[in-house]
Amino acid sequence: MTLLNDPIYGFIHINAPIIFKLLEHPFFQRLRRITQMGLSSLVYPGARHSRFEHALGCLHLMQKTIGILREKGVSINNNEALAMQIAILLHDIGHGPFSHAMENSLVKGVHHESLSLQFMSYLNKEFDGQLTLAISIFQNQYQRKFMHQLVSGQIDLDRMDYLKRDSFYTAATEGNINSERIITMFNVIDDELVIEEKGMHSVEKFLIARRLMYWQVYLHKTSLVGELLLERLLIHVRKLYKEGVELNTPKSLTFFLNHDTGAIDSEELLNRFALLDDYDIISSLKEWQHHSDFVLKDLSSRILNRDLLKIHIKNSPFTEPEILEKKALLSSWKLNSEQLDNYVFTGSISNQAYVPDTKTIKILKKSGQVSSLQEQSELFIRNSFSNIESKFYLCFAKPSL
Amino acid sequence: MTLLNDPIYGFIHINAPIIFKLLEHPFFQRLRRITQMGLSSLVYPGARHSRFEHALGCLHLMQKTIGILREKGVSINNNEALAMQIAILLHDIGHGPFSHAMENSLVKGVHHESLSLQFMSYLNKEFDGQLTLAISIFQNQYQRKFMHQLVSGQIDLDRMDYLKRDSFYTAATEGNINSERIITMFNVIDDELVIEEKGMHSVEKFLIARRLMYWQVYLHKTSLVGELLLERLLIHVRKLYKEGVELNTPKSLTFFLNHDTGAIDSEELLNRFALLDDYDIISSLKEWQHHSDFVLKDLSSRILNRDLLKIHIKNSPFTEPEILEKKALLSSWKLNSEQLDNYVFTGSISNQAYVPDTKTIKILKKSGQVSSLQEQSELFIRNSFSNIESKFYLCFAKPSL
Amino acid sequence: MTLLNDPIYGFIHINAPIIFKLLEHPFFQRLRRITQMGLSSLVYPGARHSRFEHALGCLHLMQKTIGILREKGVSINNNEALAMQIAILLHDIGHGPFSHAMENSLVKGVHHESLSLQFMSYLNKEFDGQLTLAISIFQNQYQRKFMHQLVSGQIDLDRMDYLKRDSFYTAATEGNINSERIITMFNVIDDELVIEEKGMHSVEKFLIARRLMYWQVYLHKTSLVGELLLERLLIHVRKLYKEGVELNTPKSLTFFLNHDTGAIDSEELLNRFALLDDYDIISSLKEWQHHSDFVLKDLSSRILNRDLLKIHIKNSPFTEPEILEKKALLSSWKLNSEQLDNYVFTGSISNQAYVPDTKTIKILKKSGQVSSLQEQSELFIRNSFSNIESKFYLCFAKPSL
Amino acid sequence: MTLLNDPIYGFIHINAPIIFKLLEHPFFQRLRRITQMGLSSLVYPGARHSRFEHALGCLHLMQKTIGILREKGVSINNNEALAMQIAILLHDIGHGPFSHAMENSLVKGVHHESLSLQFMSYLNKEFDGQLTLAISIFQNQYQRKFMHQLVSGQIDLDRMDYLKRDSFYTAATEGNINSERIITMFNVIDDELVIEEKGMHSVEKFLIARRLMYWQVYLHKTSLVGELLLERLLIHVRKLYKEGVELNTPKSLTFFLNHDTGAIDSEELLNRFALLDDYDIISSLKEWQHHSDFVLKDLSSRILNRDLLKIHIKNSPFTEPEILEKKALLSSWKLNSEQLDNYVFTGSISNQAYVPDTKTIKILKKSGQVSSLQEQSELFIRNSFSNIESKFYLCFAKPSL
Repeated sequence: MTLLNDPIYGFIHINAPIIFKLLEHPFFQRLRRITQMGLSSLVYPGARHSRFEHALGCLHLMQKTIGILREKGVSINNNEALAMQIAILLHDIGHGPFSHAMENSLVKGVHHESLSLQFMSYLNKEFDGQLTLAISIFQNQYQRKFMHQLVSGQIDLDRMDYLKRDSFYTAATEGNINSERIITMFNVIDDELVIEEKGMHSVEKFLIARRLMYWQVYLHKTSLVGELLLERLLIHVRKLYKEGVELNTPKSLTFFLNHDTGAIDSEELLNRFALLDDYDIISSLKEWQHHSDFVLKDLSSRILNRDLLKIHIKNSPFTEPEILEKKALLSSWKLNSEQLDNYVFTGSISNQAYVPDTKTIKILKKSGQVSSLQEQSELFIRNSFSNIESKFYLCFAKPSL
Repeated sequence: MTLLNDPIYGFIHINAPIIFKLLEHPFFQRLRRITQMGLSSLVYPGARHSRFEHALGCLHLMQKTIGILREKGVSINNNEALAMQIAILLHDIGHGPFSHAMENSLVKGVHHESLSLQFMSYLNKEFDGQLTLAISIFQNQYQRKFMHQLVSGQIDLDRMDYLKRDSFYTAATEGNINSERIITMFNVIDDELVIEEKGMHSVEKFLIARRLMYWQVYLHKTSLVGELLLERLLIHVRKLYKEGVELNTPKSLTFFLNHDTGAIDSEELLNRFALLDDYDIISSLKEWQHHSDFVLKDLSSRILNRDLLKIHIKNSPFTEPEILEKKALLSSWKLNSEQLDNYVFTGSISNQAYVPDTKTIKILKKSGQVSSLQEQSELFIRNSFSNIESKFYLCFAKPSL
Repeated sequence: MTLLNDPIYGFIHINAPIIFKLLEHPFFQRLRRITQMGLSSLVYPGARHSRFEHALGCLHLMQKTIGILREKGVSINNNEALAMQIAILLHDIGHGPFSHAMENSLVKGVHHESLSLQFMSYLNKEFDGQLTLAISIFQNQYQRKFMHQLVSGQIDLDRMDYLKRDSFYTAATEGNINSERIITMFNVIDDELVIEEKGMHSVEKFLIARRLMYWQVYLHKTSLVGELLLERLLIHVRKLYKEGVELNTPKSLTFFLNHDTGAIDSEELLNRFALLDDYDIISSLKEWQHHSDFVLKDLSSRILNRDLLKIHIKNSPFTEPEILEKKALLSSWKLNSEQLDNYVFTGSISNQAYVPDTKTIKILKKSGQVSSLQEQSELFIRNSFSNIESKFYLCFAKPSL
Repeated sequence: MTLLNDPIYGFIHINAPIIFKLLEHPFFQRLRRITQMGLSSLVYPGARHSRFEHALGCLHLMQKTIGILREKGVSINNNEALAMQIAILLHDIGHGPFSHAMENSLVKGVHHESLSLQFMSYLNKEFDGQLTLAISIFQNQYQRKFMHQLVSGQIDLDRMDYLKRDSFYTAATEGNINSERIITMFNVIDDELVIEEKGMHSVEKFLIARRLMYWQVYLHKTSLVGELLLERLLIHVRKLYKEGVELNTPKSLTFFLNHDTGAIDSEELLNRFALLDDYDIISSLKEWQHHSDFVLKDLSSRILNRDLLKIHIKNSPFTEPEILEKKALLSSWKLNSEQLDNYVFTGSISNQAYVPDTKTIKILKKSGQVSSLQEQSELFIRNSFSNIESKFYLCFAKPSL
């Protein structure tokens, strides 16, 4: 038995040798070097936790869930139990550094879900097929649907851990859900995950906590503008690279400047991706802050020193005159139009707290009937909680420093 | 008023503009990129917190302390209050990445205390002398000694924050001291810091927590062996550099391979040092793991993938035959003697829980008399708690993997 | 300075001598013997905290609030600050034991708010008029309305403490609001309390937490049925007393069996009420469990040994046939109709999360405009969160045990 | 499966029907009405938790321990597992209200350990022998000694829960031991409980936490003087009763005024004792505060209103002149000598942190050898931590009020 220390759950127990070997694999150790919340530590200094910790937390919640379901008489054999643990442990292994910014710039069109699957397939070969059932669960191809629903659903263990963990490290207690209570209310009917009726208030709380975390933490103005700047910076970097400008990037990153990631089916690409982490990006910013290119130098320095653009957010789109007005204020900077677009730009963000049509959260009533959350919860009956909420932002530099 | 989120104290308030400007300075922002506990996150995955957070935590404790002391009638004027805050905020600004390993390799002979002073002097010029009183407190040249004792003493706010913070992030609840209680028991007699008698048990608890954190957490076998390997690796790097081997290090690090840091009084050196952080070291390890030099490649990879040497610890030194026996087991690796010394080596660690002679902790008895902890505490009267405890280690690679 | 230990806030500081004297007064010490949550400890064994603790917690939050508002430049003079503290400290001093059950039986028509005022007036005489301003604030007669709003409003410090405290002791983390964040977002415009816009999500969370605490904790089936049984028992006791049955109650309680409390303006009544606490009720139950009257004996024993009636709850009223069916099941008990009504009975409970018309929560927008929560919050715009939710219950004994 | 909410551990699971029935028994429900820490809530307002909660907490820790030991390959069959749970659940069932004061006054010579055994034997009859193995474990008559050691030893689950729980409710974080870590380090060698070497620092911390809790919390001056006054009051009550004074006590208490408890082997005595709880004592104090006997009235009122005597504590006994001096100050009160002894009196308290000879804590070294704590721990080797520490107190009333 191996014990891992976790600030949230105390000890995390590792019993199965295969799990231990997966943890030791460089593909997994790499998650130690990728922060869960990207640039959020610019706002929440404590939010430096890694995807490694989150994956372990998910594993822990899965172990608890298996225990609770078995106590309730749900039969889960040892192979299934192991596969459920592996599936949740590896569900996010495809994440790279600063996923959002990267997926819109250097590794365009590559989504972490599909990469996770490729990593798992690769590891399955290395581990002689021991991951086959886990992969089947991950892809929702296994007939016992609840196993997939625990890995990926509207109230899955992934969300349960990250809300709790992100809340813990940011000190935004709004997101501190009672994962123990929700797990204890889990049950399985016809191989589908249901939540016992007396847990409904905790589910409501979970959905509301998630919504609040989105608007208050994940889409916090400062980390949003940080992410947007990083994305623009990386797009700019690629352009400079194509122009032949010397960039002094680590080899791991250079590869992605040099290649298009449209088709990422090759093993080489996977192995290259596995070398990327936060350190490649941040150490590049550190080099670039001394570069001669104005935008490269300036944006790098702004991110490193938390000297970001201003941002306004409102419920309706910004108009062209509003944008032009901000650009006009920067006329003394003598930027060309392309450069200027990195200092005044607009866009939108949105969030949907609950998606009622697909992946409905099912409630097991005391009568034994199964219903859906939107039919049972007064909070949901009465409002359109499932509406998509959208907001619009305008980022802009202030002329004087 | 600016508010900073902290997982431990909730909100940290910044009121004074000078404090806010110091926070914004790149010298201080750089602390965001230096972890407080070095490689401890290899053992305690949550322990990724930065020196930036710790400095803010110290600031918060100082604000609380000033409030408590004023409530008790200790007069502290606004200039002094500001200087006390600045002194504690900047007391560790001289830390670089992985201090211990670096101070024994690339920046030999440079201690973070003296660097902190140099940073403060440099900033004092930039801020037109506004840090003069803070520097005087930091150097213990101000006549009101308690101000320095709060910054640096046997029960100072620095220790109080790092024990609490490191305990929080490692989940080693052993170190979770009651800093609020201790601070509430602070008082000042003749400009010296004293602790009211009813706080004595909390002080005992503090000293014991500190001792346990040393042996259990700070000197944990795995992080110890990680630090030792990093130190050896960096020494090896310098040697390779002198031999002219291409190392592909970031410029910020190359400078320190190229210069001896015996005399670090020059401003250039300070500005160079200010560019160093964890990202330079870790991204270098990432490059080096693909290098052709065996030791460079192997040690880098071991640290990155947490595939460290074994370590034995005991109360007496290891003998030459014990060392040779371990070396003999590696004969198949065909290493030369110098290389082999990186795979089998020995040394010692020590800790002293309480130093009774200097910097005595003073207890204010109910009678009004001031005594010392070692005279008042039954725990201290009866045992030699202030003995230096030493242990010896032997690190060694296992032949087959 | 006196320090009081509180599991939630750590230390609570008492500086003003008048506050300390109020704490020492038997009227206030009596709150130590009145639990905050009545019979809820039947469900939540940890929920044994007293009204004494809650009052201290409110005091602490008021001290924090005064500090924050002053930091923001809201002028509050020392007299006002003291009066604000006294008003919140004493706002609940009129509570007796098991308020709900008592107000519907032995002390009919006496509401704790009006009793609090009478206690405060009484104490004001004893303290030579030092409570005059506090009473004015309590009654909302002072022109600076925010002071009253902090004591009694839709997001007052009373609610903030009890949600946090009840959540803490019940382990129902749903109610764990971030009171520090909300307080930090308080401001005052035109002597009215407002909440800064960036605190709006915390306010939403507060209202939702409160709603969930109502349905999940305060109206938990088991504590609800306990309260209802206690109420019926006390009504039954009064009837027995009038019939001349020997009841062996403590003198403090006998007084209230003997007198109608329609007019509680006399000082005697106040002094009598001040002698009542949980111990009178529970020790009476202990005597009555051995009494010869069936209902008295049986209900007392049921409450003491947590052997309560069953309860069904639904969204529509129970019909007469449903009630009669349950009564028919008890035919073997040979109860008369009046007795039977204590074993099968129905009623309703309701809760309104937010009352939009009066006592609106005001939001201070970044533009400086003041708006209302229901205009600003997407959660409120879109749903009828302010609807009164009602439910109906049917309590009944099971025939065989 | 039944779930109980606990502020410390979250949910406590009850699976076995026999455990559930024991919980429901009036003998066990009665523990809801007995506070764990007696009059400590006079100092620590939150410390109102009951022996009921503590017993449940112990049950939870036993469940965890059984799980951990089984994971390590220690075979524990289902009968044993159930008996271990019952033994710890009922280990304190013999406690009455305010044990210390009662055992020195009204129920002289009756110790709670022997009463616990009698309760268990009584229940064993009622439950048709299902408690036989539990009783054998409780009495240390079962051959697998570790089961008893978990219930009663130097580092048993009883202590582990009460230190953690008392620390939680008092806010004295000094006692917050890491019970999860200690339990995880438990192992069994030759049917004896051992602690794995890497848990040794946690054990040291446990012993130190326990020692600090004694001196700081359990023997806190104010709760000590409260307990001493209650003891004297109850002795005085018995004297008054024998003199025929009307006392108006509840019947449950009157029985113990009327009978000597020298021989408590009769079932009647057990059933009488089972009716006693805090409510009998406190409601009696409430009656007595209006009594005509000066000492009865005065001491009752002092305890209820926290208007206690003063107390001095020192390391050597108080002299006769010191006592007489305090008595002389009360001459205006016109008390006779017997009365006066309740207002000025002296005595001693003591605590031994670790008893090395019997019930040694055993350490399992990495080598597989079993050693003892006092041989392994540097903290214990170097000091006489196992000395008995004694202190002396002098309680006295102040003449003017």
